[in-house]
Amino acid sequence: MTAQLETAPHSTAFGALYAQVQQFYAHQMQLLDSAASQRWADTFTEDAVFDVPTLAEPVRGRPGLVAANRGAAARLAEAGERHRHFMGMFDVVERPDGALDVRSYTTVYASVIGGVSRVHRVCVCEDVLVRGADGRLLVATRKVTRDDLG
Amino acid sequence: MTAQLETAPHSTAFGALYAQVQQFYAHQMQLLDSAASQRWADTFTEDAVFDVPTLAEPVRGRPGLVAANRGAAARLAEAGERHRHFMGMFDVVERPDGALDVRSYTTVYASVIGGVSRVHRVCVCEDVLVRGADGRLLVATRKVTRDDLG
Amino acid sequence: MTAQLETAPHSTAFGALYAQVQQFYAHQMQLLDSAASQRWADTFTEDAVFDVPTLAEPVRGRPGLVAANRGAAARLAEAGERHRHFMGMFDVVERPDGALDVRSYTTVYASVIGGVSRVHRVCVCEDVLVRGADGRLLVATRKVTRDDLG
Repeated sequence: MTAQLETAPHSTAFGALYAQVQQFYAHQMQLLDSAASQRWADTFTEDAVFDVPTLAEPVRGRPGLVAANRGAAARLAEAGERHRHFMGMFDVVERPDGALDVRSYTTVYASVIGGVSRVHRVCVCEDVLVRGADGRLLVATRKVTRDDLG
Repeated sequence: MTAQLETAPHSTAFGALYAQVQQFYAHQMQLLDSAASQRWADTFTEDAVFDVPTLAEPVRGRPGLVAANRGAAARLAEAGERHRHFMGMFDVVERPDGALDVRSYTTVYASVIGGVSRVHRVCVCEDVLVRGADGRLLVATRKVTRDDLG
Repeated sequence: MTAQLETAPHSTAFGALYAQVQQFYAHQMQLLDSAASQRWADTFTEDAVFDVPTLAEPVRGRPGLVAANRGAAARLAEAGERHRHFMGMFDVVERPDGALDVRSYTTVYASVIGGVSRVHRVCVCEDVLVRGADGRLLVATRKVTRDDLG
């Protein structure tokens, strides 16, 4: 939560970075909710650590992410529900090496198909984003906490 | 969902575009929720196609949009409720001709005046945005789907 | 809601400004929800006016803001709940003197620790932002209205 040097919040560089971060998350969450499992997993680094309350222990690496996404999609289909991950409130801090600390909020909505929609979870998401060889953003680590857990 | 050439996500041009898109939707939805019906309709092209689950068939053109917004406002007033359209997660892809494909999420909140607030609908919004003669963004087509419908 | 001259919505200057505004609110709301009371209060001007429905009358100045935030945090702890302020839909208009009129939406989520999460409040937030001596954004006035109130 310290000030950035290269990308101070009133610079055009920060504007470009902040837009890129928002676009990254929009695309990533839409892949998640569409069960585009492999493409979703490809938005993480090869050895990413994914630590979320719905998993008994952290997942490391893309094959585990693909399996987690497929499992969640299968359970939702069986339950006749759809989930949407709606992120926002991105607090973005750039490190000297260009990695990004991003702390944000995620609301997960659940809709019963043929029924009602509701708030399912309210979460805080703490990511470290890095850049791949082609300059794309990738999640290196993700830690999600749920407001309803102690 | 392919990469942009002119406005790659890490460019200042994409930063400017992404901010403009967000500002456009913020303003447009606030007009909608305020029942500023004509000003809201003017954020669409003259021959825009507006396809949403609450309407029996798609509306084409601004007079139909004005009527739809006035009808919705009247029904809400009668029911003693307020609705808010909260959009986010904008996945923005620029076409070679400058038109924008924007896929995003919308949560509609309903509040009973003197009562409680709740999630009313969770939707996916697929727009094509184009530019008017003055460079302003306008919705050319809008297709909304609801998570609770089959 | 009139057009900006210096920072038209398709300019890189507006892109930089819009990102800064979003980053400001993300950081400010995370301070609020974390009960970082003094740091939260420091995102307002010395003589800021803070007018929200949960307070019997408007608060003026940082000591009152600190007290309000501490009081809210204590009541939440006693109730065993967490609140999250999720803002979005920022309609940003720059005045000729550089002050910003920002009208946006805020959803407040409440989670019972060990229980369920729900929509608590749906609000409209009307701020005037100004710049401190170091160029940072600060809230000069905030007026919040709740959709469930008449």
